[in-house]
Amino acid sequence: MKQSLKIVKIGGKLIENEALLNSFLDDFVQLEGPKILCHGGGNKATEIAGKLGYETKMVDGRRITDKNSMEVITMVYGGLLNKNIVAKLQSKKQNAIGLCGADGNVLISKRRPVKEIDYGYVGDVEKVNTGFISSLLDQEIVPVFSAISSTAEGVLLNTNGDSVASEIAISMSEQYETELYFCSEKKGVLKDISDENSVISVIDSEKYKELVDAKVITDGMLPKLHNCFQGIERGVKSVLLGDADLLKENSIHTKIIL
Amino acid sequence: MKQSLKIVKIGGKLIENEALLNSFLDDFVQLEGPKILCHGGGNKATEIAGKLGYETKMVDGRRITDKNSMEVITMVYGGLLNKNIVAKLQSKKQNAIGLCGADGNVLISKRRPVKEIDYGYVGDVEKVNTGFISSLLDQEIVPVFSAISSTAEGVLLNTNGDSVASEIAISMSEQYETELYFCSEKKGVLKDISDENSVISVIDSEKYKELVDAKVITDGMLPKLHNCFQGIERGVKSVLLGDADLLKENSIHTKIIL
Repeated sequence: MKQSLKIVKIGGKLIENEALLNSFLDDFVQLEGPKILCHGGGNKATEIAGKLGYETKMVDGRRITDKNSMEVITMVYGGLLNKNIVAKLQSKKQNAIGLCGADGNVLISKRRPVKEIDYGYVGDVEKVNTGFISSLLDQEIVPVFSAISSTAEGVLLNTNGDSVASEIAISMSEQYETELYFCSEKKGVLKDISDENSVISVIDSEKYKELVDAKVITDGMLPKLHNCFQGIERGVKSVLLGDADLLKENSIHTKIIL
Repeated sequence: MKQSLKIVKIGGKLIENEALLNSFLDDFVQLEGPKILCHGGGNKATEIAGKLGYETKMVDGRRITDKNSMEVITMVYGGLLNKNIVAKLQSKKQNAIGLCGADGNVLISKRRPVKEIDYGYVGDVEKVNTGFISSLLDQEIVPVFSAISSTAEGVLLNTNGDSVASEIAISMSEQYETELYFCSEKKGVLKDISDENSVISVIDSEKYKELVDAKVITDGMLPKLHNCFQGIERGVKSVLLGDADLLKENSIHTKIIL
């Protein structure tokens, strides 16, 4: 039997709120066996970009990453947030290492082709260096991924954090039994967006289509759920969606199944 | 016989000037055998801090690192500069990984005790995780160190880049025959500060004392030379000081001997 590997994605308030992050990382270090952490950090990047006088351009809720934005993302995701998470894990006696896609050539991506919209320095993951990740896991070091990948030519690209987590989980599934956790503000997928407690406990691909058609799943949840199903269809053993308490026993969450 | 290991420190204009950095990295990737790169990045941090409206406090040419400054240093050294150097190395087909002291617990430091001046989040390296560095070198991965260390409790600290390079070289000397290269703006230690071509080719500890007494070595060169002699006295096989051409054959430079 394959060894189990947990891949945990955190985003939103969970990264920005120091106390929440600390308590979450306490749960994370308690997880047994090899594990990987992935993070984004959109709001902090927007804040710093604003302070630097850079305009943040969005189209349909997606950031347009020009050269200045990519500089800020490299600073904020790759430096500030990533190194602080690693330092916090070390303070909890969990050895860890912070990575962007260029480090050890770990996440190689292709720049998104320009169609109607030029998203700028934005990429989609094409290749995960699983050998390098395994060598870290074998040394009991937790890889902490910021949402930055790199082209084979060494161009850093802003990359969706959920996709990073999902692509890593898929690639590691050959060697491990992978469990993917998406932790954000909500307890899971809500039947009624205005009711925090209307969490749908299980979604399979049929139910997923129903929920999309009924417009229960919209906006930002669409790409997130897409990443979940991508994972589960391509070898990931289990995918759970929840909030900061997702790693606790008996958490309320949404489970994605085929 | 021990295998040779080259530790190269870059700073100043060499990091900030894209063309100069690119050409320097071309020389760096040509170096044979295992190698390590260390960098600072003071001016860029001052620039970003200024744009963010943070005041940079200096006492006797040394930065006072308050919480805001440490945030900027983590962004600029640990993120922007470090990841860009790694990406550039990857583009030159040299596998590399960017590290701050917290990554893999690689550089453990103590916060500098407060005497007359409180330097803030500033630390001096106490322990180098040589095992982890060796494991990267064995995989032919170049570790790229930003000048950030971490306390055992996971507090990130601003750390002198020359000291980082020197402490790494000293610690690795047990296992390797280490060669330490300090590359900055000047071709070496100058006999006459106004004459770029007055490079002193060799300095031993006796000559060093003479030059300090004669005030030929002053200001920023004092801690730099201190780091050089620390290295050479504690096991580093060779220390060279030069400019962006230092890694080229037949470069003009200053060699430090016991």
